[in-house]
Amino acid sequence: MPANYELLDSRFMGLDAPYEEADFVVFGAPFDSTCSFRPGTRFAPAAMRRDFIGLETYSPYLDRDLADYKISDLGDLDLAIGAPNTCIKQISAFVTKLLADNKRPVMIGGEHLLTLATVKTLYEKYPQLHLIQMDAHTDLRDDYLGLKLSHAAVIRRCHEFLGDGRIYQFAIRSGEKSEFEWAKQHTDLHKFSLDGLKESIEVLKSKQVPVYFTLDLDVLDPSVFPGTGTPEPGGLSFDELRRAIASMEGLNLVGMDLMELSPHYDASGVSTAVACKLLREMLLTFA
Amino acid sequence: MPANYELLDSRFMGLDAPYEEADFVVFGAPFDSTCSFRPGTRFAPAAMRRDFIGLETYSPYLDRDLADYKISDLGDLDLAIGAPNTCIKQISAFVTKLLADNKRPVMIGGEHLLTLATVKTLYEKYPQLHLIQMDAHTDLRDDYLGLKLSHAAVIRRCHEFLGDGRIYQFAIRSGEKSEFEWAKQHTDLHKFSLDGLKESIEVLKSKQVPVYFTLDLDVLDPSVFPGTGTPEPGGLSFDELRRAIASMEGLNLVGMDLMELSPHYDASGVSTAVACKLLREMLLTFA
Amino acid sequence: MPANYELLDSRFMGLDAPYEEADFVVFGAPFDSTCSFRPGTRFAPAAMRRDFIGLETYSPYLDRDLADYKISDLGDLDLAIGAPNTCIKQISAFVTKLLADNKRPVMIGGEHLLTLATVKTLYEKYPQLHLIQMDAHTDLRDDYLGLKLSHAAVIRRCHEFLGDGRIYQFAIRSGEKSEFEWAKQHTDLHKFSLDGLKESIEVLKSKQVPVYFTLDLDVLDPSVFPGTGTPEPGGLSFDELRRAIASMEGLNLVGMDLMELSPHYDASGVSTAVACKLLREMLLTFA
Amino acid sequence: MPANYELLDSRFMGLDAPYEEADFVVFGAPFDSTCSFRPGTRFAPAAMRRDFIGLETYSPYLDRDLADYKISDLGDLDLAIGAPNTCIKQISAFVTKLLADNKRPVMIGGEHLLTLATVKTLYEKYPQLHLIQMDAHTDLRDDYLGLKLSHAAVIRRCHEFLGDGRIYQFAIRSGEKSEFEWAKQHTDLHKFSLDGLKESIEVLKSKQVPVYFTLDLDVLDPSVFPGTGTPEPGGLSFDELRRAIASMEGLNLVGMDLMELSPHYDASGVSTAVACKLLREMLLTFA
Amino acid sequence: MPANYELLDSRFMGLDAPYEEADFVVFGAPFDSTCSFRPGTRFAPAAMRRDFIGLETYSPYLDRDLADYKISDLGDLDLAIGAPNTCIKQISAFVTKLLADNKRPVMIGGEHLLTLATVKTLYEKYPQLHLIQMDAHTDLRDDYLGLKLSHAAVIRRCHEFLGDGRIYQFAIRSGEKSEFEWAKQHTDLHKFSLDGLKESIEVLKSKQVPVYFTLDLDVLDPSVFPGTGTPEPGGLSFDELRRAIASMEGLNLVGMDLMELSPHYDASGVSTAVACKLLREMLLTFA
Amino acid sequence: MPANYELLDSRFMGLDAPYEEADFVVFGAPFDSTCSFRPGTRFAPAAMRRDFIGLETYSPYLDRDLADYKISDLGDLDLAIGAPNTCIKQISAFVTKLLADNKRPVMIGGEHLLTLATVKTLYEKYPQLHLIQMDAHTDLRDDYLGLKLSHAAVIRRCHEFLGDGRIYQFAIRSGEKSEFEWAKQHTDLHKFSLDGLKESIEVLKSKQVPVYFTLDLDVLDPSVFPGTGTPEPGGLSFDELRRAIASMEGLNLVGMDLMELSPHYDASGVSTAVACKLLREMLLTFA
Repeated sequence: MPANYELLDSRFMGLDAPYEEADFVVFGAPFDSTCSFRPGTRFAPAAMRRDFIGLETYSPYLDRDLADYKISDLGDLDLAIGAPNTCIKQISAFVTKLLADNKRPVMIGGEHLLTLATVKTLYEKYPQLHLIQMDAHTDLRDDYLGLKLSHAAVIRRCHEFLGDGRIYQFAIRSGEKSEFEWAKQHTDLHKFSLDGLKESIEVLKSKQVPVYFTLDLDVLDPSVFPGTGTPEPGGLSFDELRRAIASMEGLNLVGMDLMELSPHYDASGVSTAVACKLLREMLLTFA
Repeated sequence: MPANYELLDSRFMGLDAPYEEADFVVFGAPFDSTCSFRPGTRFAPAAMRRDFIGLETYSPYLDRDLADYKISDLGDLDLAIGAPNTCIKQISAFVTKLLADNKRPVMIGGEHLLTLATVKTLYEKYPQLHLIQMDAHTDLRDDYLGLKLSHAAVIRRCHEFLGDGRIYQFAIRSGEKSEFEWAKQHTDLHKFSLDGLKESIEVLKSKQVPVYFTLDLDVLDPSVFPGTGTPEPGGLSFDELRRAIASMEGLNLVGMDLMELSPHYDASGVSTAVACKLLREMLLTFA
Repeated sequence: MPANYELLDSRFMGLDAPYEEADFVVFGAPFDSTCSFRPGTRFAPAAMRRDFIGLETYSPYLDRDLADYKISDLGDLDLAIGAPNTCIKQISAFVTKLLADNKRPVMIGGEHLLTLATVKTLYEKYPQLHLIQMDAHTDLRDDYLGLKLSHAAVIRRCHEFLGDGRIYQFAIRSGEKSEFEWAKQHTDLHKFSLDGLKESIEVLKSKQVPVYFTLDLDVLDPSVFPGTGTPEPGGLSFDELRRAIASMEGLNLVGMDLMELSPHYDASGVSTAVACKLLREMLLTFA
Repeated sequence: MPANYELLDSRFMGLDAPYEEADFVVFGAPFDSTCSFRPGTRFAPAAMRRDFIGLETYSPYLDRDLADYKISDLGDLDLAIGAPNTCIKQISAFVTKLLADNKRPVMIGGEHLLTLATVKTLYEKYPQLHLIQMDAHTDLRDDYLGLKLSHAAVIRRCHEFLGDGRIYQFAIRSGEKSEFEWAKQHTDLHKFSLDGLKESIEVLKSKQVPVYFTLDLDVLDPSVFPGTGTPEPGGLSFDELRRAIASMEGLNLVGMDLMELSPHYDASGVSTAVACKLLREMLLTFA
Repeated sequence: MPANYELLDSRFMGLDAPYEEADFVVFGAPFDSTCSFRPGTRFAPAAMRRDFIGLETYSPYLDRDLADYKISDLGDLDLAIGAPNTCIKQISAFVTKLLADNKRPVMIGGEHLLTLATVKTLYEKYPQLHLIQMDAHTDLRDDYLGLKLSHAAVIRRCHEFLGDGRIYQFAIRSGEKSEFEWAKQHTDLHKFSLDGLKESIEVLKSKQVPVYFTLDLDVLDPSVFPGTGTPEPGGLSFDELRRAIASMEGLNLVGMDLMELSPHYDASGVSTAVACKLLREMLLTFA
Repeated sequence: MPANYELLDSRFMGLDAPYEEADFVVFGAPFDSTCSFRPGTRFAPAAMRRDFIGLETYSPYLDRDLADYKISDLGDLDLAIGAPNTCIKQISAFVTKLLADNKRPVMIGGEHLLTLATVKTLYEKYPQLHLIQMDAHTDLRDDYLGLKLSHAAVIRRCHEFLGDGRIYQFAIRSGEKSEFEWAKQHTDLHKFSLDGLKESIEVLKSKQVPVYFTLDLDVLDPSVFPGTGTPEPGGLSFDELRRAIASMEGLNLVGMDLMELSPHYDASGVSTAVACKLLREMLLTFA
């Protein structure tokens, strides 16, 4: 290549640390085949890579700059669209390798089902793994239209190995009645808001247990985040979510994800901008 | 038809009670011919039927499920587009029949003018009828561009038979100066917010009078409800409106409507999702 | 229901013959889970039902009117999104029943993979079944991203039971080199245009064999049909396709389909209008 | 106003001749209230004014330049949205005045119904008026959904005073069977194409009769003109229409219009560009 | 022109006072050539002119009506797209003339760089000029991609002649770290919110100094204002901004602007409606 | 990076030859600052990189496969948005280096002005350079709104060093009268169609001169290519253009470009698909 010419970088926000030196490793997971209503989250990683240049690497909220941390963006995985089982195996194998290299994985979805792959893989390394979920939906169905591997059943699947007392759910505002009933027995579900987050964080800190944070972006109110398959009014504001993320500083975070951006429903680009900014805040909080 | 095969249902959210058994009867009224700025509300009922499958029938807010109530969705009326007079007669005749069968009508607009048809017909059965309106606009013009039958004049038309003291208006934030002046004499108009709703409800409950609730969805802030012809910033949040609806439980409600969704201005589908969810909450509150 | 009121019909173009009396039976198949690039054909049947009212039932091309034929639209199947195997079984079972009742099935896709279900089922009744495919793509891959059940492999799958000499492909303009090579041995593939259609029709007529017609709408030039997942410039004009359909009159047609409309890429609605009009012409040609 | 500063002109393409000196007078007629399917033509004049700056005033086809002719654009009329009768009276009164001043009116729609106003007014001045219509639709219904004043009935209404033998219809490809039957007795209807236009023009030239040209833009194929309420595939190409317009040079043209652009279905702006260019060619042909 | 006919007016909201009598003079400045991310603000003035008819001239917030004030809208300047230097000179010359005639300029952008032209010209007349900026971005870069004349450097450019202590910045939430550092020395920057506005207004009132108010509309939260090139979540609500504007009544305001609406990112039209309403409130506050 | 995992490649269509081995070198040039009407071509290279995966590397038209040729895609240049002079220097320096390495440059625009940079640089190496332009516009203005460096003047700028008899223009259908007059003296301009292309190719072949091919995609009819800033109806069909490109095989081609895709006006993605396919055909024709 001709030397000395500047080419645009397709990696997020200057997350260009060499893999070997990186602590966090970011990757895209473009897959949405079990989406039951409006598909399209497969396009999220590409949209975020396209628009992040509108975003500063500096956070005035945290007074930190991504340029000061070792984070490596590896690009997007080439997943088996149409084959959920295969896809989950692909992600699991990839994350297994990251863990062997002592990296902390940061996945950009794609549909929420994929969280099963990262959580399962992390659980195998960290049997004490706990899960913090922020989401509009319970995702606790036993199956969805007969599918066990469905975005609507992902947390139920995680419960099958994590067990009771490990899952904290916040700002949930949609689901079947039976899911809410089930949650009373098996998870720590907080309806509608982030009430209880502070206490949960303190418990998790005192226990020193490893934590995975999964963010289904539809937890945000669709006024500021319309770009998702199943918008649910009555959600969090951007500032509420941003502050909640900042409040998790100090947790023993071993991995996280940011799921369910669907760019086709984001004509203005605002949802993509929100997702990019939240990714920045998440990385700067835990880096 | 071949037996035992499941077909998708075009009725709202499983509102599949037989007409004979139903208390509430839902119908669509696709008409927008007097719209002065940006037409398109004629497409609202179809859009809501298309998207409701993204919505649960269970409300975690009210802890009730539509599946537990007898509600019948009859589909959409075939209205005379371009002829407001004829259209109002069609709706009036239809509602007259519903009332004769002791049903409570729930109309899905369409433009706000159509409320004249339901309110007039209900007034003939219930001379003590009172009206609660949530709306961005006064709708109190004497005429609009010379038209007496206009969405912008619909509440003024209702006043002609309801008279003073019967109309409660909330969250109004747009209109001509003369409309606000007129309201001081003839209606109970609350500007900008829902302040005063609680007191009004108590009065109406104590009076035991029959009440019609008309919801012009543009009362919502356009951040969460962009899909309407004349968006007016400064409106209610989804949660404010949802709570207001819940607070009306116990009123002697004899009919209601949900008007002015305009799907062409709802690229993300969020407005349609909001409308569906509010319809669920309205039905579960009063059912 | 209140008697004597006209409600809008959600069935296509007045295709309201009772099932018992119908010759053709139309049904929607909303499924797109193996789509590898841009999903969304699951929304096609609903979009066509919404827009058909802009279309006359009379064809000035054929001087025939749908009102004069016995055709029944049953609505859309409730398919297992995310599970191609299950979905194919659902359609096969449904079509089996239609065939037992001596109906001719007309499927509205959904993705092209579903054609496997109808063709397989018809083949079981008609072992002499021949297939006419109009399509931009060969659809002859042995697998696609490891999937055997893929829209890109559907005709290859059909060949596995139909065998050589039964498949006629027209206007194909995209595929891997190996697919075109394979076709030379096994199918009658006509590149770029409808050249050879007339001769093929004569052969099929003279043989009196049963014929299935599968229309992948992306055979049209994207200028007039942008609303599809994988647009391929250089396709047929509307008039070319319309005339080709008319020229098939007299074939022993036992079933047909119309696939791959993707409404999300059809901002203007033109593609949906094209699909509706072609369905009308197909029905009037063979009815 | 501060002298010597250039402000952008909202008039079409430099059509800035003083009214007194102008031969052609252009005006917009933003009205669409009888539209039965997808409204929005009311926005056409504004869209054309916004986008014409992308267009040259010089036609390389005709080797003429708008800058060399006296044409005056007066802007858009303020019409009574929702009241077809009133609106037709407004336009009639306006055109009456133009005719008294010896101007030739050029109307930019708005829906096709408005042509009734211009044709009727011109007929009163020119009892020998003949009409050339290019359109996808017959527009010959006796009424539409009970409305006599409907875009779908406008040519039938014109026939009521023009009578047999005065109306030439070209490229018609949609309508009810009864309309086509009726046309055989009363108009000179040419299906699908412009065949017969040349002969018709020669007849009209030899008769020296005054001619009105009404162009419903949906006569174009929706590939190049998606932006209309009821797109009908199988229409004219831009070049066919452009040449047809040029071929009318020499007719005794007393007025013309260009109707049914609907900008909401024109996401790319191509339809608006087509409409602007055709207006230029129409003016340069007859000026 | 034919007398006595009503034509639609392309001027804002009846701002039709003769230039000579006007106090405020409104003009559009359609220019966006230095936009680094997503261009399109050049279309803002035209979009606002198109949509203002959906807005009442009466403000129920302020209980004032635009019809009661002398304000003149002159239309849009014809600016040199692609040449920032020339464009700034054009605006400066225009504003110089307005000031000579004792008008107060109100500019509708266009990109924020243009504020340099108005502020510089006003500064030459009012050496004591102070600046209130509401904006998501600091706009304090020394240069942007090597450009000194950039929207991202406009306030830094203004500081070059205004000097320290003259610039008040509110609700800033994005910028490089070095910009925030620089601001600590040179401007009065308030992060994230309007905290401190009240005190600043009191200081400015007590000093009696002339004030320019520049409103970059991206200060609003993108939930209610998606239509801008670089959306930044976490901004003001409409009501917060509206109240802030009202609170500035009494300042010695000598000019103002409203910048960075980008209609291409405003599919629903809500952002344009917001901009129109804020312009109304700004004019009614200071008129 | 973890070994053995497949990541998605952001390079075009497998154009992954090492720079050292490549003959053609492809690069994106995202710049549109002189665009006078509707900007957005800066987004074209990214859009093409996103969508090319919907395209086969094999051309059934040419029976060749990109996988069989040594072509290297370097990504997109980081250009000085807002500063045309600087940008042209950046591209010139980059291309100079490519030429020194004996590569043939293939530029993906961006606006047409950028062609000045590649043509000028190639001219310095090849003084006998000839230019084939396919375009809707003459691009022969002496200046545009005062700008010498404008997309509308780019071929005029090229003429300043190439001189008479070197420039062949095809399918031109828009421009000012004076441009067409000027062309008669200085270029070989073919209006409306590709008539004369065959003869021109033969002349150029017989002369053995080096040739640059610049393709302004707006030469296509906007029916199949709506995604451009200034759509001009009456253009080429995809097949006409594809065949024209194939007919140029055998020319001594030293560089080429493909300009003016504007993804914001390409809601369906068809224009981007067309651009990708033409790039494939261009590379396979000359490789």
